[in-house]
Amino acid sequence: MESFFSFLEKRVDDCSSLLCIGLDPHISDLKEPTAASALDFCLTLIKQTAPYAAAFKPNAAFFEVFGAEGWTALKHVIEAVGEESARMGSRIPVILDAKRGDIASTAEAYAQSAFDHLGADCVTVSPYLGKDSVDPFIQNSEKGVFLLCKTSNAGSMDLQNLLVMPMGSDTPMPLYMYVAKLAREWNEKNNVGLVVGATHPQIMEMIRAAAPGVWFLSPGVGAQGGELELALKAGLRKDGKGILLPVSRSIARAQNPGQAAAELRDEIVNIRRQQFQI
Amino acid sequence: MESFFSFLEKRVDDCSSLLCIGLDPHISDLKEPTAASALDFCLTLIKQTAPYAAAFKPNAAFFEVFGAEGWTALKHVIEAVGEESARMGSRIPVILDAKRGDIASTAEAYAQSAFDHLGADCVTVSPYLGKDSVDPFIQNSEKGVFLLCKTSNAGSMDLQNLLVMPMGSDTPMPLYMYVAKLAREWNEKNNVGLVVGATHPQIMEMIRAAAPGVWFLSPGVGAQGGELELALKAGLRKDGKGILLPVSRSIARAQNPGQAAAELRDEIVNIRRQQFQI
Repeated sequence: MESFFSFLEKRVDDCSSLLCIGLDPHISDLKEPTAASALDFCLTLIKQTAPYAAAFKPNAAFFEVFGAEGWTALKHVIEAVGEESARMGSRIPVILDAKRGDIASTAEAYAQSAFDHLGADCVTVSPYLGKDSVDPFIQNSEKGVFLLCKTSNAGSMDLQNLLVMPMGSDTPMPLYMYVAKLAREWNEKNNVGLVVGATHPQIMEMIRAAAPGVWFLSPGVGAQGGELELALKAGLRKDGKGILLPVSRSIARAQNPGQAAAELRDEIVNIRRQQFQI
Repeated sequence: MESFFSFLEKRVDDCSSLLCIGLDPHISDLKEPTAASALDFCLTLIKQTAPYAAAFKPNAAFFEVFGAEGWTALKHVIEAVGEESARMGSRIPVILDAKRGDIASTAEAYAQSAFDHLGADCVTVSPYLGKDSVDPFIQNSEKGVFLLCKTSNAGSMDLQNLLVMPMGSDTPMPLYMYVAKLAREWNEKNNVGLVVGATHPQIMEMIRAAAPGVWFLSPGVGAQGGELELALKAGLRKDGKGILLPVSRSIARAQNPGQAAAELRDEIVNIRRQQFQI
């Protein structure tokens, strides 16, 4: 049985890309404020960018806002990634960006919804409720999570940067470092990654040192203003992998999204080549 | 304009109850594993328990697991609470238990989904992403949030009990106390409450001391084993209000859910009377 991150790495090799194309049908980007228009938006983006996509990441909120029809659209979007994968002969993982986090029996229902009903391969999950709230998502090694660690928004300072004193230690560390430590422990099946904003390269570097093998999902390149090269230098693993870079608006709003994705992919290839001779 | 917690307090007075009836259609409790059966389950429970319900609390996970049909059922469930309220002449708030938490532009979509599309009055929200992730839910004082603080599950120890050192302070405090402090600051419009498990009465007492006016949503009475009297003594405000007690399985699985709710309501009335002569 293949673990989620083995599956992702296979795809990264197939397309020489670390891009995670965000499928975020913001109402302001749609022709009409309808689920049908959201679906159209995503299907077009999938077709245009699939060759350069190490993964696709639909955000549940932008579908949920259309109610039941939005939910149907989300299911179709995930199916469309499967069809595009079959056409290309290389399966592309789908990360459902839903930031779930609830007590175990409820988390089981969320996991069933994301993996069995919708057919996603991975979900973003909050660590705030602890290990038992994450377990239902990582029982099956083929499915994975990215655990919120240090997010890219300004408000991430409020809790995530607090200095904490772990039990049995007298050395304080930021909460995000503690979450990184937990992720490393919880990653027994190679299916636990971390959300680490590309907007904080120095922090990214610290988290990489604490969790050398763990995959990062690192938003902030593009619309949120992270600098690509700094982020890659700070966060790539020694094998030149280990970061997925979610991009949504900067690609979706380009005149030619396929070309924009290709160019960004190539820029990443160049940086990786310079740094790792790969 | 009435704030969310003024609205809730009016309902608490109308029904002399602090019960928050959980609408959690676990598949194992349904006649068939379908959205229609989930809807039936909830509509029956609403009819049986409405006179004793200070609030209703559907958990999104148990609807989402049925996909688009589940989402339609959730909308109908919330509408049914409105119809039952109209019949009784006393409006019952609906708290959507969804534990949302995302960056601001995404949180806006979640808020729109919960409040505008589904018609809920309040949402449970995670504090992990900070103030800007909570803001979209509390702009309108008529709508509210319960912020996850100290949850009732065993895993709540993992992060929530960590000792943190707030900036400019050299006195460590548990993370949940820090979240309580934040909630008190963020509660400018009387629409920010806290999730504080009834399973930890001593912690509840500490949080009450730190946030004397804030409403708690306190799961753990019933199936999760909290002791009712201890929890009320630890967490009630000086006015004998300030705690909503979510109950789901212990009521839903009773032979006569209406009677079970009435009895539990009366037990709470008695404890409040003994303690506060109200």
